[in-house]
Amino acid sequence: MLASFVAVGLDPTKSLLFCQSSVPEHAELMWILSCNASMGYLARMTQWKSKMALPDTASPFDTSSASASTSRESTKLGLFAYPVLQAADILLYGTTHVPVGEDQAQHLEFSRQLANTFNHTITPQDPIFTLPETILSPAKRVMSLKEPSKKMSKSDPDPKSRILITDETQDIRAKIKGALTDSIEGISYDPTTRPGVSNLIDLMCYMDPTISLTPHEVANDMQNVSMRSLKEKVADVVDHNLRGIRERYKSLMSKEPSYLAAINDRGASAARKIAQGRMGAIRAALGMGSLDS
Amino acid sequence: MLASFVAVGLDPTKSLLFCQSSVPEHAELMWILSCNASMGYLARMTQWKSKMALPDTASPFDTSSASASTSRESTKLGLFAYPVLQAADILLYGTTHVPVGEDQAQHLEFSRQLANTFNHTITPQDPIFTLPETILSPAKRVMSLKEPSKKMSKSDPDPKSRILITDETQDIRAKIKGALTDSIEGISYDPTTRPGVSNLIDLMCYMDPTISLTPHEVANDMQNVSMRSLKEKVADVVDHNLRGIRERYKSLMSKEPSYLAAINDRGASAARKIAQGRMGAIRAALGMGSLDS
Repeated sequence: MLASFVAVGLDPTKSLLFCQSSVPEHAELMWILSCNASMGYLARMTQWKSKMALPDTASPFDTSSASASTSRESTKLGLFAYPVLQAADILLYGTTHVPVGEDQAQHLEFSRQLANTFNHTITPQDPIFTLPETILSPAKRVMSLKEPSKKMSKSDPDPKSRILITDETQDIRAKIKGALTDSIEGISYDPTTRPGVSNLIDLMCYMDPTISLTPHEVANDMQNVSMRSLKEKVADVVDHNLRGIRERYKSLMSKEPSYLAAINDRGASAARKIAQGRMGAIRAALGMGSLDS
Repeated sequence: MLASFVAVGLDPTKSLLFCQSSVPEHAELMWILSCNASMGYLARMTQWKSKMALPDTASPFDTSSASASTSRESTKLGLFAYPVLQAADILLYGTTHVPVGEDQAQHLEFSRQLANTFNHTITPQDPIFTLPETILSPAKRVMSLKEPSKKMSKSDPDPKSRILITDETQDIRAKIKGALTDSIEGISYDPTTRPGVSNLIDLMCYMDPTISLTPHEVANDMQNVSMRSLKEKVADVVDHNLRGIRERYKSLMSKEPSYLAAINDRGASAARKIAQGRMGAIRAALGMGSLDS
């Protein structure tokens, strides 16, 4: 995952990149925020509700054979409480802006609410938390290649439903060739009646920074093109624009593991200094006393 | 609270006494255990269910004026998730035995379940957690002096419903004199039909280590005594047996605050060394890498 982040362009000399678990202050702040996180608010989070409908295959601990219980029964607290850990991830660093997909906007609103309540009740004179602003990605959701009514997702059971940023050219071609479309003559853009075709056009527009046309205009220009040609064109655009990422990813993964470990260690060490300083201030505000460490 | 613990007999030279928040590894382990804690199991905890019926006055953050919502809505994650933090408190130290009141036996069973699942799924070759055994207090619950169907509780809104270990002689006398009993002639022991009187007899038996009779036998010996005399006798026993605690408590509280702070600091420092060592082993078992500091 760290290699992917660096490959897509996060620069470890400018950004602190690290595993959440390398900075245990996240868990410490999470517990403090939990004491003010409303059960009702958490239960309304749509991510949680959508996971509740799924079998519990995502838990790293679960012995799936022993799970004869319902999904509500077997769903773990870690999933339900996750938005609070996300809030800690954000608030621990005085974060001002958070880039998210629209499905995460609700969690960010929750982070602001937790920050705001803490500021008002614990530190009214000198608010301790910065309220983070939401930056929504200009690209809306990319949909599944197999079921274009669903979001494209890493956790979808069908690997052909998604393109990975590490996919090879032939994988990208095969997946887009196999994408679910429809049997309507010609190309047109209408996400409601032609979700599969429209998703491919969206994908092309998102991936190619040189396209300045709207998806409607792109579809118009291609209205007499065959579905097969459209798919080849989309595959070319996706492959071309993922190539640099894929090559950087491969290059990073071919280095000694210590290369990536060193990036994490530098990031974690710098992040932890910030986190410990902020936790010191938060602990002081709550009257919890300082840690000698 | 620390002074109370020392006053009742916990010896800081034998026991590590410290604030939970002085050892942030508790929160770190809690998050790890949360990922395996079933929502269904937590929702069945009777402590949580009983708190759900109460207005949410216990939260240290809550601005009660803004709380127009139902108790489920406003109840905090920290309360719901608390049994997982308790499990972390216990499991972090390889605890073998935990003395609890019967209302906490369910939480201890939950701790064993979390430990057991972790051992089986993460460290099957070399189980990392000790399964803690329950030690039930020989005294069952002491009931409220005002509503003897309810447990005597620090959080009861009526301070006359409970005796504090720091109460002065005249407070103890007044509270027991005002205890709810009944207008049945004579003294007898029957928790069902005479809960108030039976609670006073239980209290006397629990408090006086020299009484070797059962509550029934005690009641038999006192069957012709007046209610007033019974209450005076109970107040004497309670006062006599709390006196030493009360005096040690006062003496501790009259010292410089640094005296108790030093007890906490010594306990926390020693506990944190143990906790950090154990978290290192737990992190290694999960492949999380070690922390530098």
